[in-house]
Amino acid sequence: MSDKKIPYKIYLAESEMPETWYNLRADMVHKPAPLLHPVTHQAMTAQELSAVFCDELVRQELDNDTREYPIPQEIRDFYKMYRPSPLVRAYCLEKKLQTPAKIYYKFEGNNTSGSHKLNSAIAQAYYAKQQGLVGVTTETGAGQWGTALSMACAYFGLDCRVFMVKVSYEQKPFRREVMRTYGASVTPSPSESTRVGRSILAAHPGTTGSLGCAISEAVETAAAHPGYRYVLGSVLNQVLLHQSVIGLEAKAAMDKYGIKPDVIIGCAGGGSNLGGLIAPFMGEKLRGEADYRFLAVEPASCPSLTRGVFAYDFADTGMVCPLAKMYTLGSDFIPAPNHAGGLRYHGMSPILSQLYDDGYLEAVTVPQTRVFEAAEQFARVEGILPAPESSHAICAAMDEALRCRETGEEKTILFGLTGTGYFDLVAYQKFHDGEMTDYVPSDEELAASFAKLPKVE
Amino acid sequence: MSDKKIPYKIYLAESEMPETWYNLRADMVHKPAPLLHPVTHQAMTAQELSAVFCDELVRQELDNDTREYPIPQEIRDFYKMYRPSPLVRAYCLEKKLQTPAKIYYKFEGNNTSGSHKLNSAIAQAYYAKQQGLVGVTTETGAGQWGTALSMACAYFGLDCRVFMVKVSYEQKPFRREVMRTYGASVTPSPSESTRVGRSILAAHPGTTGSLGCAISEAVETAAAHPGYRYVLGSVLNQVLLHQSVIGLEAKAAMDKYGIKPDVIIGCAGGGSNLGGLIAPFMGEKLRGEADYRFLAVEPASCPSLTRGVFAYDFADTGMVCPLAKMYTLGSDFIPAPNHAGGLRYHGMSPILSQLYDDGYLEAVTVPQTRVFEAAEQFARVEGILPAPESSHAICAAMDEALRCRETGEEKTILFGLTGTGYFDLVAYQKFHDGEMTDYVPSDEELAASFAKLPKVE
Repeated sequence: MSDKKIPYKIYLAESEMPETWYNLRADMVHKPAPLLHPVTHQAMTAQELSAVFCDELVRQELDNDTREYPIPQEIRDFYKMYRPSPLVRAYCLEKKLQTPAKIYYKFEGNNTSGSHKLNSAIAQAYYAKQQGLVGVTTETGAGQWGTALSMACAYFGLDCRVFMVKVSYEQKPFRREVMRTYGASVTPSPSESTRVGRSILAAHPGTTGSLGCAISEAVETAAAHPGYRYVLGSVLNQVLLHQSVIGLEAKAAMDKYGIKPDVIIGCAGGGSNLGGLIAPFMGEKLRGEADYRFLAVEPASCPSLTRGVFAYDFADTGMVCPLAKMYTLGSDFIPAPNHAGGLRYHGMSPILSQLYDDGYLEAVTVPQTRVFEAAEQFARVEGILPAPESSHAICAAMDEALRCRETGEEKTILFGLTGTGYFDLVAYQKFHDGEMTDYVPSDEELAASFAKLPKVE
Repeated sequence: MSDKKIPYKIYLAESEMPETWYNLRADMVHKPAPLLHPVTHQAMTAQELSAVFCDELVRQELDNDTREYPIPQEIRDFYKMYRPSPLVRAYCLEKKLQTPAKIYYKFEGNNTSGSHKLNSAIAQAYYAKQQGLVGVTTETGAGQWGTALSMACAYFGLDCRVFMVKVSYEQKPFRREVMRTYGASVTPSPSESTRVGRSILAAHPGTTGSLGCAISEAVETAAAHPGYRYVLGSVLNQVLLHQSVIGLEAKAAMDKYGIKPDVIIGCAGGGSNLGGLIAPFMGEKLRGEADYRFLAVEPASCPSLTRGVFAYDFADTGMVCPLAKMYTLGSDFIPAPNHAGGLRYHGMSPILSQLYDDGYLEAVTVPQTRVFEAAEQFARVEGILPAPESSHAICAAMDEALRCRETGEEKTILFGLTGTGYFDLVAYQKFHDGEMTDYVPSDEELAASFAKLPKVE
């Protein structure tokens, strides 16, 4: 099809939206390793996991075989309020870069949560409601996940208790206020409301909190209140299953116009967006039906794939969650403060970790100031102010397009624009004022963290 | 067509987007009164206006006859980056309200400026560029217009100088930061950089500024710098012309599905959104081809249509701009601080004022806390966190739908959802904390303001 025929934005019709999620694990030769009990190191059973997670989500978490999961009608109806998300042809960026490459991005930011997180939040809230639960608990750092979950819970009339890392709670009052608008209760973590919170406050009275501590508080709260379960916005297999809707829509839109991407790029923190975006394309590659390059982009300050080790590790710093086999910097590793909070996680989705280890996925890191340079350039030509997380993918996509300018290759690039930066303007301000730093952990720092990994036979 | 067939969101194809703007004045029996020179009270000539505005925009401002203006290709290309905007069927809100009414809204918030303001900003920047100008100046209060203009100027490589009311500059650093991201210079007003700014600062050293003062500074700066012109985001006829794209798209989407609205509702500050939304529908009514009810929704704190007088008045408090005949509370009237900054204007578009005076348009006011109650209810069921401005229309649309529940009427309601509230969370916080007030000006206060209106023969 002639290039001229491709619109700026490809929207699927509602009738063309996916009716099933795609479970990438069904096509993986090496399945992700099972979750292990944090004390016994035995594979977690469904019954054990059901104490923490909803029953249906446990089933999805453990299911390495079922290829397709029907998306319940109620979730499909909710999706219709903000999906299909547009697949955008970045004509203006291409022109600005003077590249022969064709650049596409799947934009997930056009909803009030401001990111792709809503895709899994609504699914997790739905299954909690189906099970007759009263509410759910979770943690949030940067606030995207907490906002998405608040919206989903408001829709289904579920109680939503969010533990927000104290430093974010204080520095991001607007994120907190959005969650309140959707009826969620937001507690700064560590708090006096949990045993683990009180013990941390006693030991470190001035602490500003951490994601690990907030996770522990949320898990404890769910366990202590009948009718509550804990939910998580990334890393888990179930989350990647729900997020496959991103890739399925992107692929359907591209197929409709006969477009085949050469390289697919996504930012990678816990892996929820990247795993969802690449899913159906990776499926074709695994089945030998097509070939694509896949590129994970990490912050140089938190490089789990590129500089981590592939080992069993705790998902949280509180060490109450199961052990997962993943690329990790060690659960004890505290990433330097950076402005892509959603990417500040020590580990990586077990699914993506396995694919990376098996050579199906490449990874690069980019330093923070380069990310913001790319973000600003993108905003000025494409109009959208991107989230710092998403801007890692923008940066790598622009690098790829500039290489095409050198070589003359007309590559087709697809990247995931996971969200908007409307709540990240403190970061933009630091960038404009020249106060942004590019921290990279030393080898010694990482080695010390690796030494503390749990010993699993 | 069966109701079931109507999707949650109707997106026009790019090929169905309007190719012309519609000039409502061509169909008005009583044209809007001419702008008058602020000193001589003679009708402003094109030449006089060209000292302040771009030549093409002057032509559009004065043209009461040409029905259709072709939209230049460059503007249509820019529109494609964020338009067509969706026409949304509010299925979830209807269900929540248990109303037989069918509710639609035209959502203009899916762009980084967060509102419909970008529709005119890109047009005004385009004509400035076409004329070979170096840059433009403007004022901004709440910040939506300044953001939109910054984005438009970045796209065309124009310099953009924004005078931002000092209190907003200080209280809304994030809006300011978005403008900086797009390369605009943002100056708190009053400033030392203009004669009028210095004189106001000398007289009132502690002032936090006003929109009127910022306008005067922007106009003075444009006049003092060769290659600059002043641009304005509402009130003017040219702005309503550009904003007709909202109504044209909405009508095309409705026509496609055989939907005819019974009542069309929009919030009204200066009138840019309402005038744009209703334009093609009002045209049909003026030509006797169809009938619709039109409803302007004003804040009770700034009720220019409902409690103002139809008279010549200054567009600015500095009294440097031309006189416009409009419904006004008096240019000396200072609306109480409210949280729908975009609606805090003492006057109303001369086009809408004339239509209101001729009985084609109705108007109501709503108090602030009711607006936020409606906003929160809307957010929880429709997923979008609305701007306080837009929430005035939401509130009136919900009232209409609830009346239909009483009467059993299956009315079709269309309202304009002009933007998102992501930068208005201080207002939401006050609402949640019970600190919101409902100020309504007294008759005495308004009478005192009317007494100071300019005497025009």
